[in-house]
Amino acid sequence: MDYAIASDIGGTNLRVGLVREDGALEQKQEYKTPQNNPDEVVALLLNAIGKLQTKGKAVAGIGAGVGGFVDFEQGQVVYTPNFSFSNIHLKDILAKRFKLPAFVDNDANLAALGEKTYGAGKNIDNLVGLTLGTGIGGGIIINGQLYRGNRSAAAEIGHMTIQMGGPSCGCNNDGDLEALAGGRALDLEARKQAKEHKDSLIYKLAEGQIEKITGVLVTKAAVQGDELAQKLLQQHAERLAVGLANIVNILDPEIIILNGGLAEAGNLLLQPAKEILKKRIFADTKNSPKIVFGALGPDAGILGAAALVFEQLK
Amino acid sequence: MDYAIASDIGGTNLRVGLVREDGALEQKQEYKTPQNNPDEVVALLLNAIGKLQTKGKAVAGIGAGVGGFVDFEQGQVVYTPNFSFSNIHLKDILAKRFKLPAFVDNDANLAALGEKTYGAGKNIDNLVGLTLGTGIGGGIIINGQLYRGNRSAAAEIGHMTIQMGGPSCGCNNDGDLEALAGGRALDLEARKQAKEHKDSLIYKLAEGQIEKITGVLVTKAAVQGDELAQKLLQQHAERLAVGLANIVNILDPEIIILNGGLAEAGNLLLQPAKEILKKRIFADTKNSPKIVFGALGPDAGILGAAALVFEQLK
Repeated sequence: MDYAIASDIGGTNLRVGLVREDGALEQKQEYKTPQNNPDEVVALLLNAIGKLQTKGKAVAGIGAGVGGFVDFEQGQVVYTPNFSFSNIHLKDILAKRFKLPAFVDNDANLAALGEKTYGAGKNIDNLVGLTLGTGIGGGIIINGQLYRGNRSAAAEIGHMTIQMGGPSCGCNNDGDLEALAGGRALDLEARKQAKEHKDSLIYKLAEGQIEKITGVLVTKAAVQGDELAQKLLQQHAERLAVGLANIVNILDPEIIILNGGLAEAGNLLLQPAKEILKKRIFADTKNSPKIVFGALGPDAGILGAAALVFEQLK
Repeated sequence: MDYAIASDIGGTNLRVGLVREDGALEQKQEYKTPQNNPDEVVALLLNAIGKLQTKGKAVAGIGAGVGGFVDFEQGQVVYTPNFSFSNIHLKDILAKRFKLPAFVDNDANLAALGEKTYGAGKNIDNLVGLTLGTGIGGGIIINGQLYRGNRSAAAEIGHMTIQMGGPSCGCNNDGDLEALAGGRALDLEARKQAKEHKDSLIYKLAEGQIEKITGVLVTKAAVQGDELAQKLLQQHAERLAVGLANIVNILDPEIIILNGGLAEAGNLLLQPAKEILKKRIFADTKNSPKIVFGALGPDAGILGAAALVFEQLK
C-alpha cells in the first residue's frame, strides 16, 4: 500500500506524519510552530520530514496544510493572519528537497477532506468542516470534492461577519465568526469577565493568574456549576449557532463536522447551539443538517493532507 | 427552435412569458400577485399561461420560479415568507393541466441561472446572483450548475445574519441581510428618519405621505444632494458590503451579479459598497471578485425559468 508524507502547520502546532493510504497514521511528530521567522518554520518542517522512517515504503508524495490563505494551484502560502509565514512557495520547496510530488492547501480545507476521506464524513458528498481552534477555519466539500472557489479563497467561514461593528479580527474584518466565537475570543472574554467577578469559580481555578484562563478552564468551571462560566459558554454557543445557521442557509450541507480544541468543550457548547440554530434556519427546520463532532480529533488536518496526495495522484 | 413557457412568481409581481431557446422573450404578461389566497395565484398563473400564443410552436416544457423555499426534486413550493403560497405542488399542477414537463425552483436561483445562460454570467462557471428586491434572494452557480444543497435549501443568502440581535425578518431570523439591506428595510428606515427630519428633501418629495417613501424616492433625493438620503444610502451600502464580503469569503465566486429593484439605485449604492467590501475580504483583495449589474433586468427570473426547462430536458 502507498504512503504519503503529511504535515499540518498551524499558528500553534506543526505536525508531521507518515500516513498509509487506508488512513493509518504510522508515525507522528509534533512541535510548537516558530512564531516570527518563516525560515525557522521551513527548517523545522524539512528536518521533521527527514526524520520519518520511509525506507522500503512506497511514498507517493507530500501534502501540507497551512493555517492561512494558500494559492492551491501555485502551492504558495500567500498570507497567514496568525503567524509569520506568508509568501512561501512551499510546494516547490518540498518537491525540490524530497524529489516527490507535493501539494499545499489551507489547513481547514484539509481537515474537512480528512474527515470526508477517513472520518465522520465518509460516503457524504456535501459537507462543511469547521475547525474551532484559536481561530475558526472552514472547509467545503461539494459533490465529493473540496470546493476552493475562483482564487483558492473559498471556505473562509471564520471571516464571515455576524455582528457588524463587533470586535476586530486579525484579518482586518470586524465582528466576524472567528472574532466572536473562536477560542481566542472565549479566552479574552473569560479573562475580562473573571477580573470583574473575583468570586467566580473561573477566577479561583486560575489561582489569580488571569492568563491561565482558557476555554478548557471555563468548561471545567461550567461543569462544576459556575454561573459565570455557564453564561460565557451560552453566549459562545449563541454566536456559534449564528455561524452554523448562516452555513446552513447558504450551503445547505448534509452534515457539518466540528473539529479543533473548542469542539472538545463538546455538548456543553453544541447542545445550546443546536437549539438556537433551529430558530435561525430559513427552510425545512425539521430536516436541518446534522451537526457532529469529527472522528479524527487533532489528526484531521494531517490525514487530510495525506488524502490530498492520494486524490491528486489518482 | 424550441420554446419554453416561463413564469416568475414573486411576492409583488407574477410574470408569464414565452421564451425561445436562444433567450428571445417573445411574449410577456405581468400581473400583481394575489396576496392572501394560493388558489387565486394558481388560477391567475394557469389563465395567463393559457393566453400565450403557442400555436405552431414547439413548446418543450414549463418552468416556474417562486419567491420562497421550493423542493426542486418534488417541484413543491414548501414555504413562502412574503406571501401566502405555501405547500403547493406546482410541478404537478402545471404538468397535468398543460401536458408538458414542468420544473419549479426558487426565483433567485432562476435569476442566477438566467444571467448565467443569457446575461452577465455567460461563460462563467462560478458565480453568485443576488436579487435585491423587497427581500434579498440568492442563487449559486458552481461548475456551471445551480447549486441547491442537500434539501434544495441552499443560497438563502438574504437570510444570513450579519448583525446578531438586529431587526427581525419574515423568516424568524434577526439581523439578517434581508432585514438590514433589503428594499423593504430601506423603505422602513427612510420613513422613520423622514418623520424625524421634516426639513429633509425626502420628506418634501413625499408631500407629507410617509408611505410614498421608497428606495426610488430616496435615490432621487440623494442625487439632488439631500443629506439624509445620502446617509441612508451609505448605511445601506455598508450593510450590503458586509453581505457581499461574506459571500466572497465563503464562496469566492468569479463574479457576483446584482439584480432586482434596489440594484437600480445603481452606482450610488454599489460604489461605496465596493470600497467597504475591499476592507472585509480575507484574502487577495486585489483580485477580488467583480461585482456587476445583471444584464436581464426584471426578466432575469423568467429567462432563468426557461433556461431551467432547456437544461433539464437536454
